[in-house]
Amino acid sequence: MTDTPRQMHLFLVIGNVGQHHGAWREPDSGIELADSIDFHAEVARRAEAAKLDALFIADHLAMLGREAHAPAQHLEPVTVLSALSMCTESIGLVGSASTTFNEPFNVARQFASLDHLSRGRAGWNMVTSAFGEENFGSDPLPSHAWRYERAGEFVEVTKALWRSWDADALAVDREAGVYARPERVHPVNYRGRHLTVSGPLNIPRPPQVHPVLVQAGTSADGMAFASRHAEVVFSAHQGLAMAKRYYDQIKRGAEQVGRDPDGVKVLFGLSPVLGDTPGDAQERQRVLAGLLNADYAKQLVGFQLGGIDLADYGLDEKLPLDLLPDPAVINRRQGRFDLYRQLIEEGQTLRRLTEIEATAAGLQVAVGDVEHIAKEMVTYFEAGAADGFILIPPSQRVDGRRLLSEVIPLLQERGYARAAYQGTTLRDHLGLTRP
Amino acid sequence: MTDTPRQMHLFLVIGNVGQHHGAWREPDSGIELADSIDFHAEVARRAEAAKLDALFIADHLAMLGREAHAPAQHLEPVTVLSALSMCTESIGLVGSASTTFNEPFNVARQFASLDHLSRGRAGWNMVTSAFGEENFGSDPLPSHAWRYERAGEFVEVTKALWRSWDADALAVDREAGVYARPERVHPVNYRGRHLTVSGPLNIPRPPQVHPVLVQAGTSADGMAFASRHAEVVFSAHQGLAMAKRYYDQIKRGAEQVGRDPDGVKVLFGLSPVLGDTPGDAQERQRVLAGLLNADYAKQLVGFQLGGIDLADYGLDEKLPLDLLPDPAVINRRQGRFDLYRQLIEEGQTLRRLTEIEATAAGLQVAVGDVEHIAKEMVTYFEAGAADGFILIPPSQRVDGRRLLSEVIPLLQERGYARAAYQGTTLRDHLGLTRP
Repeated sequence: MTDTPRQMHLFLVIGNVGQHHGAWREPDSGIELADSIDFHAEVARRAEAAKLDALFIADHLAMLGREAHAPAQHLEPVTVLSALSMCTESIGLVGSASTTFNEPFNVARQFASLDHLSRGRAGWNMVTSAFGEENFGSDPLPSHAWRYERAGEFVEVTKALWRSWDADALAVDREAGVYARPERVHPVNYRGRHLTVSGPLNIPRPPQVHPVLVQAGTSADGMAFASRHAEVVFSAHQGLAMAKRYYDQIKRGAEQVGRDPDGVKVLFGLSPVLGDTPGDAQERQRVLAGLLNADYAKQLVGFQLGGIDLADYGLDEKLPLDLLPDPAVINRRQGRFDLYRQLIEEGQTLRRLTEIEATAAGLQVAVGDVEHIAKEMVTYFEAGAADGFILIPPSQRVDGRRLLSEVIPLLQERGYARAAYQGTTLRDHLGLTRP
Repeated sequence: MTDTPRQMHLFLVIGNVGQHHGAWREPDSGIELADSIDFHAEVARRAEAAKLDALFIADHLAMLGREAHAPAQHLEPVTVLSALSMCTESIGLVGSASTTFNEPFNVARQFASLDHLSRGRAGWNMVTSAFGEENFGSDPLPSHAWRYERAGEFVEVTKALWRSWDADALAVDREAGVYARPERVHPVNYRGRHLTVSGPLNIPRPPQVHPVLVQAGTSADGMAFASRHAEVVFSAHQGLAMAKRYYDQIKRGAEQVGRDPDGVKVLFGLSPVLGDTPGDAQERQRVLAGLLNADYAKQLVGFQLGGIDLADYGLDEKLPLDLLPDPAVINRRQGRFDLYRQLIEEGQTLRRLTEIEATAAGLQVAVGDVEHIAKEMVTYFEAGAADGFILIPPSQRVDGRRLLSEVIPLLQERGYARAAYQGTTLRDHLGLTRP
């Protein structure tokens, strides 16, 4: 492994038929299978055949009234990943779980179990939850700062629980009748402002010790948290300059808290819209856009801009900046708000904002043929703006399939993507040391 | 299905290498695999081949310092069941989740997901948790009454969330661009003393509508809860008379709250110790008892008796009744306390108590050859003391294997157990209607 050139780390977002809010309307979208394991298993097997680092399932704790126009629901990530552990052998399994609306003992157990079931392939995407408070008796949503403070305690507790069994805790001495060595199983005795957990965990040390810690902070609090705790960070930005700035900030932040910057992999979020030719890809993007209800798309953007009503604005208008609420009052998805605010400042139309939101949830969209998408990825990678990518195809059955069967093989051929798994755990794939 | 005679409903407890606290020391116990999916998958496949109704995984939220003498840890139930959904096709998948240390929105999602993944085979064992408060910042443990009051709200919310999508909520009309009918997806708006949940769930209606609701209450509060909410109840008693009384109480309780008593299946807990001959089985019981550390066994019993120290009592002594705390102060496992108190009143020795606790966690132990175990089951069944059994073998690899490959086939031959699955869901197996 030491002799291979630096290669991209690649995650594929699954969990629905595709990210584009209109893609379910395509004939072969697979929407009829969306609530079964079959669709996810099909995508998982293809991603493993392409030797990706991991599958990734995001999570949402509320419907947000979106059911009319898009499949806003999805199955719970840890159950789906547990099932997928049985029909895959090597690919990592990463899922989101909220630090605001869960207890650390439960989350520690779920991901420790998943790590055991999958023999070391689990990853936890730590989210502080921007929505769902009404389902947890927690209305109004606690402040951004409160949520990140709790998240910091949460991850400390969880890591301590995962380490509460020493590597040699299990004796399994039938003759002497000693199952485990009690002196090798340690209480945690965590007493924080938000959390009190005694421990130990009731599951022996997971194969990876810590399932891989993943995070996607773009706000100031979020980036500070990422620099301190995350081993994989998702970068949701538009364009190389912003991506590069974010990359450098995360690496520098990690260094400042005494971590090896190479122990934090920054993956740039990319949504590939694929066509046989550049023109075909542009046409595909237009077709996808046409599948989207315009009123709904405007609602999505208004929602991310702090809940403003955009019904009276035309898609080709530029939004006035004074329409936006004061950034200081934004308590949900500050990073997304900042992104759209910046795009408005740059003079982008409402149509452009709806495309970015509805196609890829704020991630960069790349439109082109196989060669173009591969080149785009190499550009970000070589520029030091990304250690790899989190890929979020508009449609799994269309763009996702071509991504895995055409773009990735091209990157493999050119030495940028792994052609075979070298190790067995997600940490191995990512080149992360065991804690 | 209507012409088949009344048959036993059969659940098999899995989740560790066996229930007997010494069984892990047997040469082929499988203990080396206990923390992997392989052991569970092997047992699951055998249980499905025997056409059992369901697998059942109990749960614990604390180690209780037992790691030295027995495999007290185990993987988290929902993750394991999700994995098992992929290597089984028909058998039910039932797991415990706490109503005290979870949020209903999370539990509703997990079991709805499991029901979708397994195509209608999920069951939820509702537990109020007697232990683990120190891991949830909830020290001291809330009172028994508080826990059951919250549990009552919890199950109401959870059922409402499962029903929040109407059966015809999904339109999936590609042409019109209508994914779901918003007027068919309902908020829950639950406001209780303990819980506030708005809903709707972000997962469409599970295949069974409600995953099957399971419970094991033996205290007064527990039985009232079971009569009102449970569709399967576990009976943990010693002897036919107690079992029959419990059975009648549950059925009568269900009737009193206006439910069809046949909509509550009472399964009698049974731990089969199997031998080629009755003498062999007795010998096997002695061998198993010999694998148990006596001090540890006394600790287990002292623990269930409200935390008293039995170190100075010999195994063949009868415990004095005045050693026990006032039943009114017992806040954990009242049912188990009452059982052991009664056995002490009957003059049973400490050895007998340790056997019952360490072999089968308070459940009835049946010792004998295949014919004897089958007859014992038929006796309880015919006497109207059970609609079936929850089987908890001391060792999965020894007694569990013979149970599935010899006792169940005998019961099938005699018409007491199903020889083939007739339906596809756990509700089908149990003869329970969809809500």
